[in-house]
Amino acid sequence: MFDLFSVDDHIIEHAKVWTDRLPARYADDAPHVIERDGREYWVWEGETFPQMGLNAVAGKPQEKWNLEPVRFSDMIPGCYDPRARAEDMREDNILASLCFPTLAGFGGRVLNNYADKELASLCVAAYNDFHIDEWCAAAPEMFVPCIVGQVWDPVAMATEIRRCAAKGARALSFPEGTVSLGLPSLFSDFWNPVWEACTETDIVVCMHIGSSGELTNPAPDDGPFVLPIALGNVNACAAMVAFAMSPVPRRYPTIKLALSEGGIGWIPSAIERADRQFLKHRLWAGMDDLLPSQVWERNIWACMIEEPFGVKVRHDVGIDKILWECDYPHADTLWPHSQKQVAELLADVPAAEAKAMTSGNAEELFRWKIGVGGVGGV
Amino acid sequence: MFDLFSVDDHIIEHAKVWTDRLPARYADDAPHVIERDGREYWVWEGETFPQMGLNAVAGKPQEKWNLEPVRFSDMIPGCYDPRARAEDMREDNILASLCFPTLAGFGGRVLNNYADKELASLCVAAYNDFHIDEWCAAAPEMFVPCIVGQVWDPVAMATEIRRCAAKGARALSFPEGTVSLGLPSLFSDFWNPVWEACTETDIVVCMHIGSSGELTNPAPDDGPFVLPIALGNVNACAAMVAFAMSPVPRRYPTIKLALSEGGIGWIPSAIERADRQFLKHRLWAGMDDLLPSQVWERNIWACMIEEPFGVKVRHDVGIDKILWECDYPHADTLWPHSQKQVAELLADVPAAEAKAMTSGNAEELFRWKIGVGGVGGV
Repeated sequence: MFDLFSVDDHIIEHAKVWTDRLPARYADDAPHVIERDGREYWVWEGETFPQMGLNAVAGKPQEKWNLEPVRFSDMIPGCYDPRARAEDMREDNILASLCFPTLAGFGGRVLNNYADKELASLCVAAYNDFHIDEWCAAAPEMFVPCIVGQVWDPVAMATEIRRCAAKGARALSFPEGTVSLGLPSLFSDFWNPVWEACTETDIVVCMHIGSSGELTNPAPDDGPFVLPIALGNVNACAAMVAFAMSPVPRRYPTIKLALSEGGIGWIPSAIERADRQFLKHRLWAGMDDLLPSQVWERNIWACMIEEPFGVKVRHDVGIDKILWECDYPHADTLWPHSQKQVAELLADVPAAEAKAMTSGNAEELFRWKIGVGGVGGV
Repeated sequence: MFDLFSVDDHIIEHAKVWTDRLPARYADDAPHVIERDGREYWVWEGETFPQMGLNAVAGKPQEKWNLEPVRFSDMIPGCYDPRARAEDMREDNILASLCFPTLAGFGGRVLNNYADKELASLCVAAYNDFHIDEWCAAAPEMFVPCIVGQVWDPVAMATEIRRCAAKGARALSFPEGTVSLGLPSLFSDFWNPVWEACTETDIVVCMHIGSSGELTNPAPDDGPFVLPIALGNVNACAAMVAFAMSPVPRRYPTIKLALSEGGIGWIPSAIERADRQFLKHRLWAGMDDLLPSQVWERNIWACMIEEPFGVKVRHDVGIDKILWECDYPHADTLWPHSQKQVAELLADVPAAEAKAMTSGNAEELFRWKIGVGGVGGV
């Protein structure tokens, strides 16, 4: 049996995450759940949003999956209840789990859309407090705290990162692409306060596919939704190559980036291509000589779930760069069959390599010991 | 020495390609070259466009590359003169070469922007006549005819495909993405006349990276131009997965798609991911059971230029799916060192496999015999 460390799972926030924590004057505008026509909806700032069924498929047969709204009572409790989640994780001997938000959006993307940025900032802090004090506290040896920030205000975000790091945060969910959110790219100084706070507190920057709010979809009108899902690797590739060529790892050489749910099999090819183009064009473009592959080796990690080809080329990816994810309760998850899946996936892999990929690398990256929890100072 | 078949090179159209062929009434509006401030510009429909230096770097040292306008006299003649080009090709023992347009845009993308679609349609035919009767005729055993079409009018395009097939055309340059051009996706019936004409005439559909007119650029304002260049593989991946899931290979099971300049190393991972997602979601999405990997094996080819990792995983890609390209006179080309580069790249590859990848697969795909030219009927 493998002791598994999942670096990518998902919280479906329960109905009172924000109403429990925000001042009463925000009762109408803060995210809260209403019932209408026999369905449940989230409401904030006067607008109504359904839960998407595909975000909570754990435990359901594939033919019943869909994009339709879903009620909390349609989900298994592990989606929104941290104690039930911890039990579900233990069932698969997943002993550490890093969870991303749903309603807040990966990287706090959804909160960035709020008209009232004071409300949005309170919602960031409320999510982080819920995440650390309620969700993670329910199984403190298991849940690795992963926060969001005020992406519209990097100075406020840096303060929030330091506040949460002091409470044990290990990771920051940050958008894989910022330009699509109407924000500056990684090539701008805009984000420097964030990188400073992350390097100072040793917080890992996690870029989850889809967190840019932009899917790669060559047929948005008439193609099936499985097309942009299948192209999630493309978003991770764009994020990685942009980071590797950007000033970020040049100004902050100890910064750590984890690509979440992007897979690993494409990485050797993407890095090979990035190096080749960098070497061809860096002279006329006036760039330095830090290769994308050197940034990859020094600053970036990536995770896999069900990738026989990725495992086959693991030495080209780098054994110490590979993490494992469960993706509970999303469509990629193999829960409650994680052990069987990992055993098949890693059948031909030496035990030491398997251990590094399924837990060891993540333990080191997030300063988190399987069965114990956070280790080391901030 | 390798007998090389390059499936991706580029023509810089000479100044009289269109003025030589269009009715006199279009003298002002058809593409023609003017001189201004010591530079040369293309003019059509009253608008002025520079040549881009990076499109004609063959024979220049890297530190002199840039995006600035360039004069014909700044280029080596092989850029625009088919006899000089054929000599340059022979110098590297490249014995067959398939060339894409520049001014017309890959896939005729630029012509799609013309306000006067009658003019645009005449320009399509003029380019194709120039390409077959002038460019390819200069070395008919070497130049594999690759045409463009009226992407705004699939019925006219189908007629043009049949007209050119009768003159020996072997390939159609088609946009890798059509939605960004304001046209329907591959999931629409709109394109059926094109696929019918291509399958009937055994014309290979070539999708060159960038032909959608959209680069993958996470930092469009402040990032270096090498970033979207390095992400060209992403465009090819999106095009391939969309095609593999679309109705096109389902309705036209003998259709042939060649990915141009997208590389090969990313393919096993992309196909693995596409299959996995297809199998997860096809039930609720109401899709059939033709896997993306089956479409890849049956209908798609891809090319490489300088990809040690791609060669390493060639059996995962499929030895019979891999083609070679020179990319003369663009920045990726290793001309005039193709032989040295190929010898190094394929040093550890058995001779039969090397032959398949450098010429044999392309000979079969394009019905074109090295040293002879087109073989087989239309």
